[in-house]
Amino acid sequence: MKISHIEHIGIAVKSLEAAIPYYENILGLKCYNVEEVADQKVKTAFFQVGQTKIELLESTDPEGAVAKFIDKKGEGVHHIAYAVADGVNSALSEVAAKGVQLIDRQGRKGAEGLTIGFLHPKSTQSVLTELCEK
Amino acid sequence: MKISHIEHIGIAVKSLEAAIPYYENILGLKCYNVEEVADQKVKTAFFQVGQTKIELLESTDPEGAVAKFIDKKGEGVHHIAYAVADGVNSALSEVAAKGVQLIDRQGRKGAEGLTIGFLHPKSTQSVLTELCEK
Repeated sequence: MKISHIEHIGIAVKSLEAAIPYYENILGLKCYNVEEVADQKVKTAFFQVGQTKIELLESTDPEGAVAKFIDKKGEGVHHIAYAVADGVNSALSEVAAKGVQLIDRQGRKGAEGLTIGFLHPKSTQSVLTELCEK
Repeated sequence: MKISHIEHIGIAVKSLEAAIPYYENILGLKCYNVEEVADQKVKTAFFQVGQTKIELLESTDPEGAVAKFIDKKGEGVHHIAYAVADGVNSALSEVAAKGVQLIDRQGRKGAEGLTIGFLHPKSTQSVLTELCEK
């Protein structure tokens, strides 16, 4: 697997409406997209910071993964997404062959038109890890 | 404040020795520096990923901030560090004037020769936030 850069950092928040002003008014970043990802039961807000995006995640369902994460750990960084140069499916197969537990065995559609696949935090030193490609 | 990119993502781990092989053998990244930061009671390991570094943090003291973080939340992402183009001291003053609670009122020396300053997670939507400059 060839990782080119960190595509985004996903941050779990209780409310986009409460969080966006911090990123805009204090850090001086600009929210350029708000998008619902029904599949993941989240509303997302994006900020570009150099090569990397900050992706805020608000759960749209109390049973969703982001809501459960906040219940357990509180608001905070939820996942790191690495851009892979050689394709998500190839990267997923490669790490599975090395014994990594996968959440997604095949790439699927994520926010912003990316193809994404998650590795299980049990195999990634407790950091929920996403691989993605444009 | 003008943020140019994400300088690094700090990840709390119980053991660098256990964590480094995941980043090297599964993600294919290369650990290029291991450094102790006595001031912060941590040993750090660095991996370059595009513009951004992954900084693994192992506590050298059970009473250190990283050890306490792991006790409370488990291993995982500990902080996000933004590179500021206009200087850490100026950025700290600017956000303090906007009511942000600071951990550091003035820049101090961090790993890799950076000047760094932390904002308190109470003011940053629960993400421990570092500002830094070369």
